[in-house]
Amino acid sequence: MPQGKPSQVPEDGLTTRQRRNQPLVVVHTGPGKGKSTAAFGLALRAWNQGWPVGIFQFVKSAKWRIGEETAFGVLGDSPSGGSVTWHKMGEGWSWIQRPDTEEDHARDAREGWEQIKRDLAAETYRFYVLDEFTYPIKWGWIPVEDVLETLRDRPGQQHVVITGRDADPALIEVADLVTEMTKVKHPMDRGQKGQKGIEW
Amino acid sequence: MPQGKPSQVPEDGLTTRQRRNQPLVVVHTGPGKGKSTAAFGLALRAWNQGWPVGIFQFVKSAKWRIGEETAFGVLGDSPSGGSVTWHKMGEGWSWIQRPDTEEDHARDAREGWEQIKRDLAAETYRFYVLDEFTYPIKWGWIPVEDVLETLRDRPGQQHVVITGRDADPALIEVADLVTEMTKVKHPMDRGQKGQKGIEW
Repeated sequence: MPQGKPSQVPEDGLTTRQRRNQPLVVVHTGPGKGKSTAAFGLALRAWNQGWPVGIFQFVKSAKWRIGEETAFGVLGDSPSGGSVTWHKMGEGWSWIQRPDTEEDHARDAREGWEQIKRDLAAETYRFYVLDEFTYPIKWGWIPVEDVLETLRDRPGQQHVVITGRDADPALIEVADLVTEMTKVKHPMDRGQKGQKGIEW
Repeated sequence: MPQGKPSQVPEDGLTTRQRRNQPLVVVHTGPGKGKSTAAFGLALRAWNQGWPVGIFQFVKSAKWRIGEETAFGVLGDSPSGGSVTWHKMGEGWSWIQRPDTEEDHARDAREGWEQIKRDLAAETYRFYVLDEFTYPIKWGWIPVEDVLETLRDRPGQQHVVITGRDADPALIEVADLVTEMTKVKHPMDRGQKGQKGIEW
């Protein structure tokens, strides 16, 4: 992306530098591909800044994101860049493979969110990926008001990236940077299934 | 992304496995953020498969993608995963910082494209990122017909991801997977400039 000039300069009493370094809430939503992959791409930049990166997966199956998890494992262990901590909500959380009830998943998701709240309060990380976090909000497992309040009141310089379809309008309202990924064309439309190196 | 069922099974005489492993042309276009970051996120998966990854930058300034370049340098050097080769089109290619003529840039872009053609013919990589490659096509520096023919005729199992705004309609036509990134909200709209860890 080009550096670009701001289309307007706000009268907020901040210097350009102060304004530039404001912590962001970023949302990647929409029905297209690239929401999570773009979040992990951003995490590469955060890692390169030497920032502690926290990744919280609210995904359906441990199979997914294995490429990203392996890569960030190598990066986090390397002498350069920041640390990387990878959290899976409820180890093995998978509503495909386990005969769990919805209540179990809701509880796992809520426990994950409580951990995120503690980390935000303690400023454990500088950059957070809350991967597919829109779903537990959408399903009513985590109250959106609690999410909004937590994000608004978070201390310090903590960037938070949230991915998933159907982001709550109130979440979009509070976010600083929102991108919608739209499907123009997908191999599944013509009968092709997912494949390694692309989908995982 | 969920595994999902194909919406139809094509009568192409291929087994599911053959169909599944077809090499893809992927395009990330549109005015929103995340086109390149999602391409680099995909490259993490390709790296994790042990595939040789080739990244070709057609970007304006060497400043950009420094986080990604550093990260993929660490990954490429690590004992796990595939190799990563990072190409910048015309070292220092930058129409902001150098007083070059448009002709110089066009020549650099064409040289870069010729290298990509040689690599595709030789199957040098299994996964290609052609970052911001839509622009030299848009500006007429590289004929879109040449790109389409090269992509159609490429041998083997080579995935190619192309990013940038205003992708040529003919490129979208030939692509297998196309996502449009749409800007819903951006900090620049309220006077904020890019910042480290987010924009680079």
